[in-house]
Amino acid sequence: MFEQIFENVRQKSPLIHNITNYVTVNDCANMLLACGGSPIMADDLDDAVEITAICGGLNLNIGTLNQRTIPAMFAAGKRAKELGHPVVLDPVGAGASKLRTDTALELLNEVHPTVIRGNISEVKTLALGSGTTKGVDADIADKVTEDNLDGAVAFAKDFAKRTGAVIAITGAIDVVVDGERAFCIRNGHPMMSAITGTGCQLSALTAAFVTANPDTPLEAAAAAVCAMGLCGEIAFQRLTEMDGNSSYRNYIIDAMYRLTPAVLGEGAKYEVR
Amino acid sequence: MFEQIFENVRQKSPLIHNITNYVTVNDCANMLLACGGSPIMADDLDDAVEITAICGGLNLNIGTLNQRTIPAMFAAGKRAKELGHPVVLDPVGAGASKLRTDTALELLNEVHPTVIRGNISEVKTLALGSGTTKGVDADIADKVTEDNLDGAVAFAKDFAKRTGAVIAITGAIDVVVDGERAFCIRNGHPMMSAITGTGCQLSALTAAFVTANPDTPLEAAAAAVCAMGLCGEIAFQRLTEMDGNSSYRNYIIDAMYRLTPAVLGEGAKYEVR
Amino acid sequence: MFEQIFENVRQKSPLIHNITNYVTVNDCANMLLACGGSPIMADDLDDAVEITAICGGLNLNIGTLNQRTIPAMFAAGKRAKELGHPVVLDPVGAGASKLRTDTALELLNEVHPTVIRGNISEVKTLALGSGTTKGVDADIADKVTEDNLDGAVAFAKDFAKRTGAVIAITGAIDVVVDGERAFCIRNGHPMMSAITGTGCQLSALTAAFVTANPDTPLEAAAAAVCAMGLCGEIAFQRLTEMDGNSSYRNYIIDAMYRLTPAVLGEGAKYEVR
Repeated sequence: MFEQIFENVRQKSPLIHNITNYVTVNDCANMLLACGGSPIMADDLDDAVEITAICGGLNLNIGTLNQRTIPAMFAAGKRAKELGHPVVLDPVGAGASKLRTDTALELLNEVHPTVIRGNISEVKTLALGSGTTKGVDADIADKVTEDNLDGAVAFAKDFAKRTGAVIAITGAIDVVVDGERAFCIRNGHPMMSAITGTGCQLSALTAAFVTANPDTPLEAAAAAVCAMGLCGEIAFQRLTEMDGNSSYRNYIIDAMYRLTPAVLGEGAKYEVR
Repeated sequence: MFEQIFENVRQKSPLIHNITNYVTVNDCANMLLACGGSPIMADDLDDAVEITAICGGLNLNIGTLNQRTIPAMFAAGKRAKELGHPVVLDPVGAGASKLRTDTALELLNEVHPTVIRGNISEVKTLALGSGTTKGVDADIADKVTEDNLDGAVAFAKDFAKRTGAVIAITGAIDVVVDGERAFCIRNGHPMMSAITGTGCQLSALTAAFVTANPDTPLEAAAAAVCAMGLCGEIAFQRLTEMDGNSSYRNYIIDAMYRLTPAVLGEGAKYEVR
Repeated sequence: MFEQIFENVRQKSPLIHNITNYVTVNDCANMLLACGGSPIMADDLDDAVEITAICGGLNLNIGTLNQRTIPAMFAAGKRAKELGHPVVLDPVGAGASKLRTDTALELLNEVHPTVIRGNISEVKTLALGSGTTKGVDADIADKVTEDNLDGAVAFAKDFAKRTGAVIAITGAIDVVVDGERAFCIRNGHPMMSAITGTGCQLSALTAAFVTANPDTPLEAAAAAVCAMGLCGEIAFQRLTEMDGNSSYRNYIIDAMYRLTPAVLGEGAKYEVR
């Protein structure tokens, strides 16, 4: 199944509009190109709606959120939904400040994203309407582990039911759910957290996968999560004893560029609950 | 000829002011350093005019165009022209939205850039005052090929005559023209389109080459296009079977850092029509 | 001493808020992760104060300074000082424009940074209230050399006394001083100036080191400068004949990721005057 999903990305080359932070935007663009998609970025209110209309999907990321681009996010998000385009919301740092929490909650309520992709802390913030976040990393007390996996799945399914969105919670174990089914994913490598923006890249990637597979957003999002994690594994194997997080960043994008549907199909580690 | 042009870049180390998008700005800065130039970025109206005055050339790039920086582009562009500095205009995504198209056309009319560097779709948008663009990539129906090369050259020369600018249309075959002569360039590699911002980097590079060679803007722009393409070839040779677009990005900038005037002279593939 | 300082960074993993330019922000984030810290970026007035409060330290960098983010710098800076957090000021391009010079001087006077990290030209601008800067590189006539080192140390100590800040002037020889003591540092490699943002990365790194060692800001800043320079040396050793400034950028961050306190202790080259 994931093979066909990835094949569709390569074949359709979805054009993804990203309104995203300036910290990791270059890596997001190269990751989209690596998977077979195509990126475009426009964040001015006068530009974003029109750019959204020529794209196939939209990726909204609230890192480095600011008053200038917030209206563009809402306008582009609503336009994308009118056009039937998938919208991914990455609530970077929700819970860390009122501006981020409020904006993410309003985007959730007004745009109705197709997929929400964040760490457990950010997603809990959205689900509970409040929370705490240590920067952009998940609250350690709230890590998804084998012990609390069933609880995390139930929490995520409930949130998915309430919002109608696919919920992708990423961490040591990734949980991707709609209201009915959960993909529990064990791809990836801990060193990925030593790179800025692997989460942002995954959200962009998810937008490409869901855009190329509009009828199966749950499976498409799960495939994107597996693909990113698998590339983290492949890239880790490649590290020499002089390589650190900067080369690792390049190698992960490289691995996505080289990844084939067959290798994704074989390497994806998940169970459905 | 290209040897001397490149030698001048290395010798003079032109300081280039860039008002450019936040997606590819870091690679533009490193590409400028790689060629022997020096980058500076300022995009606030209160800052940009003064920074322009201490530089030798100006690179205007309308990716991630926004209302805050548009006035800075016009003010810096006019100041640069008053000072006799070369100005490069990269109309990223012209044709894809009204804001981009209108702004690019107004910059063309009010700033009178020394060089316009874009893909065929963007340049056609400027030349015709309208058009369509699939994101930041050239419209496939409008690719410059061996079959339509004469037509593309005639179109570009006409646009160059009307504007007084050197026109650099890049793609599988690159066409760099003034009103009289055309350099048709066959350097480069198709994989360069799998990296975000090779076009942006080329525009920054072109600004450095033209600034260091103010009396020969046509030849300087053509040399920059050859140098970028040649580095794409050299970097491609270096790729291992695990390398993808992210390492390729690094290798192209590395290749520019290592490129010598002699190697450029030998490796440049062009004909003059 | 530097071993323990670096050990503290690795152990405490300080969360650093960066209000910085969009040119080099990604490398700053990866450098912070490489040293063991954690980055967060927020530049909107409504967001920056709250984000500052959840962090341990603040890094203010005035590259690509603009009217939207200036108020956020002042508000975050004042909040950080109220909370007793270290603040690093990187006056990128001070002296190159009135906006940059004035803003840097006001930040100096109103925020009272813990550390000021810049090149000699930028620091002279702040110290003298005026000056000239060739872009973001030090004025060549003002390089710190063996011949004028005593004068530079005296100048820096005087400025440190007047401001109460640790002053870190980086160049071929680095000078890190408070009002009493000076670390004269000879780590680093000339090729580091062929990469955009090594200075920005160092300022972010300094914020992490000082935040993890709040009682010894002079030693912590000196350790950061040594660590950055040592990574420049280690990364240079790794370069192949095809590598240029882009790979060198990656290798320096990689070297920081791999650096151990013991290697820093052995490799730091400094004298105290």
